[in-house]
Amino acid sequence: MPHTAHAITLAARPKGQPQLSDFATTTRDLPAPGPGQVLVRIQWLSLDPYMRGRMDDAKSYAAPVPLGGTMEGEAVGQVIASGSPDFGAGDTVIGPFGWCDQALADAATLRRVDPGHAEVQTALGVLGMPGLTAWVGLNDIANAQPGETIVVSAATGAVGSVVGQVAKAKGLRVIGVAGGPEKCAYAVEILGYDACLDHRAPDLAAQMAGTAPEIDIYFENTGGATLLAVLPQMKVGGRIAVIGAIAWYSGQNADQALPLPAVWRMILTRRLRVQGMIVFDHNHRRPAFLAEVAPMLANGTLINRESVATGLDAAPKAFIDMLKGGNLGKQLVRVG
Amino acid sequence: MPHTAHAITLAARPKGQPQLSDFATTTRDLPAPGPGQVLVRIQWLSLDPYMRGRMDDAKSYAAPVPLGGTMEGEAVGQVIASGSPDFGAGDTVIGPFGWCDQALADAATLRRVDPGHAEVQTALGVLGMPGLTAWVGLNDIANAQPGETIVVSAATGAVGSVVGQVAKAKGLRVIGVAGGPEKCAYAVEILGYDACLDHRAPDLAAQMAGTAPEIDIYFENTGGATLLAVLPQMKVGGRIAVIGAIAWYSGQNADQALPLPAVWRMILTRRLRVQGMIVFDHNHRRPAFLAEVAPMLANGTLINRESVATGLDAAPKAFIDMLKGGNLGKQLVRVG
Repeated sequence: MPHTAHAITLAARPKGQPQLSDFATTTRDLPAPGPGQVLVRIQWLSLDPYMRGRMDDAKSYAAPVPLGGTMEGEAVGQVIASGSPDFGAGDTVIGPFGWCDQALADAATLRRVDPGHAEVQTALGVLGMPGLTAWVGLNDIANAQPGETIVVSAATGAVGSVVGQVAKAKGLRVIGVAGGPEKCAYAVEILGYDACLDHRAPDLAAQMAGTAPEIDIYFENTGGATLLAVLPQMKVGGRIAVIGAIAWYSGQNADQALPLPAVWRMILTRRLRVQGMIVFDHNHRRPAFLAEVAPMLANGTLINRESVATGLDAAPKAFIDMLKGGNLGKQLVRVG
Repeated sequence: MPHTAHAITLAARPKGQPQLSDFATTTRDLPAPGPGQVLVRIQWLSLDPYMRGRMDDAKSYAAPVPLGGTMEGEAVGQVIASGSPDFGAGDTVIGPFGWCDQALADAATLRRVDPGHAEVQTALGVLGMPGLTAWVGLNDIANAQPGETIVVSAATGAVGSVVGQVAKAKGLRVIGVAGGPEKCAYAVEILGYDACLDHRAPDLAAQMAGTAPEIDIYFENTGGATLLAVLPQMKVGGRIAVIGAIAWYSGQNADQALPLPAVWRMILTRRLRVQGMIVFDHNHRRPAFLAEVAPMLANGTLINRESVATGLDAAPKAFIDMLKGGNLGKQLVRVG
C-alpha cells in the first residue's frame, strides 16, 4: 500500500524576490515506515520568513535547500503508520517535514502535540517557534523592563504580534510598525499597541521622532525604513534585538540603510547593545515560555490571528505574498 | 601676583582631518584661587582620539568644544596655590584642565595622584582613562574568557596595548592590527601579541582569514579596513566591543565599510553581540581595574610605552599625527 506524497521543491534560486517559477511540485511513493520511522499525513504547514534565506546558496546558520530539494519547514500532522514505539497511528505530531502532504520521518525529530490543549496549528505559531522567538528576544536578548518603551517592527506578524502583547502585559510602552493602515488599526485596536506607524509613510522618521522620541528597545524584524527611523531615537543604553530583516532578505531596499560608520558611531556614543538571535539556540527556554504564554492564549489575554492558505499547491504564492507583507498574523497552509 | 596661563583653543571646526590652522593659542592672567579652587601648573597633557569628536558641532555623548574655547582634555599637574582644604601646594593632581599650562579649577573635579606609586603621567594612560577603557571593554563588555581568540585594532595605542597584554595574561589568543611593520613588530616582540597584521596591507582580509579564521571577540578601536577584515571571521556568539572608530572620525574611509544590510545579516545569523562603551559610565570599576593592572605595571608584566611631545605648543601637531597613527602607545604632551 504505497502512499503517494506531493512536495514543493526549489526549482531555481530566486534573483531578488521569489517567483512562482522558483518552485516545482514533485510526486513520489513513500514506503511503509521502517523501525524508528513514522508516516505522517500533514495537516498544517508553517510559512516563515527565514525560509527565504534557505533558498539562497549563501553561508548562513543553516545549509541552503539544494536545487530540486523539498522546501524546508515545520508542519503539524497525524501519524498514519508507525515503526516507532513512541508514536502510534492517530497521534498528532510536529516536525521538520518540509512543504509536503505526506512524509516519512525519523521519530526522533518529532514532538507530540496535544489536540486537547490548544488548536494544533498554534504549535507552529503563537505556542511554537515564532512565539518562542518573540518571548526569548524580548526577555533574554532585549532584557525588557516595565516602564520602558519598545518599538516592534512587523508588529502584526507571527513574531511581532506576540512581542507586542507580551511586552504590553509586562508594562512596557509598545509602539508597532506595520505595513498599511489596516494592519496599524489592527495592532492598536485588537493587539493593544499604544501606537502603530505605517512603514510606508514617507515621513516615517518624523512620525517616529514624535511618537517614540526615546526608545529603550527595538525589536528588529525588518531592517529597511523602520530601522532608519528608529536609530536616531535610540536612548543611551538601548538594546536592539536583531531577530530578522525581512525588508532586506531578497536584496531589495539596500538604499534604506544608514552608512555603517554612522551606525557604529551611534552604537558607540549611545552605548547601544545590538544582538542577533536564532531561536534554535534557545529551545531550553520552551518550558518557561509555554508556562507564561499558553495561559495567556487560553484565557484570551493573547490574541492570535492566522492567515491561512488552502492546499499544498497554494504554499508558494502564500510565501511570496508573506514576504511582501500580505499576511496578518501567522501564515499557515492548511494541507490536509 | 597674577599667573599667566597659555591655552590651545579651537579656532575652526575641522573639515575632515584637523589642520594646524584649526587651533590657536591664547593667553590670560589667572587670579589667585578663591574658596574651593586650586591653581595648578600642568605637567602632562593627555591627547586622546575622543577629542576629535569634541571638535565637531554634532550631537554626541558630550557637548562640543565651542569655537574659541579651550580644547578639552585630562592633564596632570602640581598645585601652586589652593583655596581648598582638600589640596595643598605641591600636591600632584589629575583633572579636566584642558590644553593649557596653568589652570584654575574647582577642587571637586580633581583627584590626587601619588607620585610614589607610579610615574605620575601613567594616571593619564595605562593606569588612567585609556587603561580603564581597555579593562572594562575586555571584561565587562566583551566578557573575555581564557582560550578565546581576540582581535584588537589600534593594537599598540594607549587602549589597545593594555587590551592585548591583559587579554594575553588572561589566557586568550591575541591578534593585533596596527599600522605599519614597526608597530606590528613592537606588538609581537614587546607586547606579546601572538600575531599582528598591518591594516595598510591590501590583502588584510586574506591575512585575517588565515591568521584568525575564528574570532570570538573583536575589540573595536578603528572601524574601516580592520572591521571589514574581521566581520567575515566572527564566530557564532562572538562579541564586538565598540570602543572607538578612529578610521572614521574625520569622515574619511567611508568606503571601507560593508553595507548595513550585510552587517545586520551577520549579526543575525552569527548571533553577534555588538555593544558600545564610553568609559565615563564605568568609573565605579576603577578600584577593581587598579587592583589588577597596577601590580602588572609595577612588576613589569605590563609594558607601558609613551609617545611624548614637548611643550604645549606641540600639542596640535601631536594630536593631528596621533589621529593618523603616528604614535606608539600613549600620546602625551610634557607641558611643564
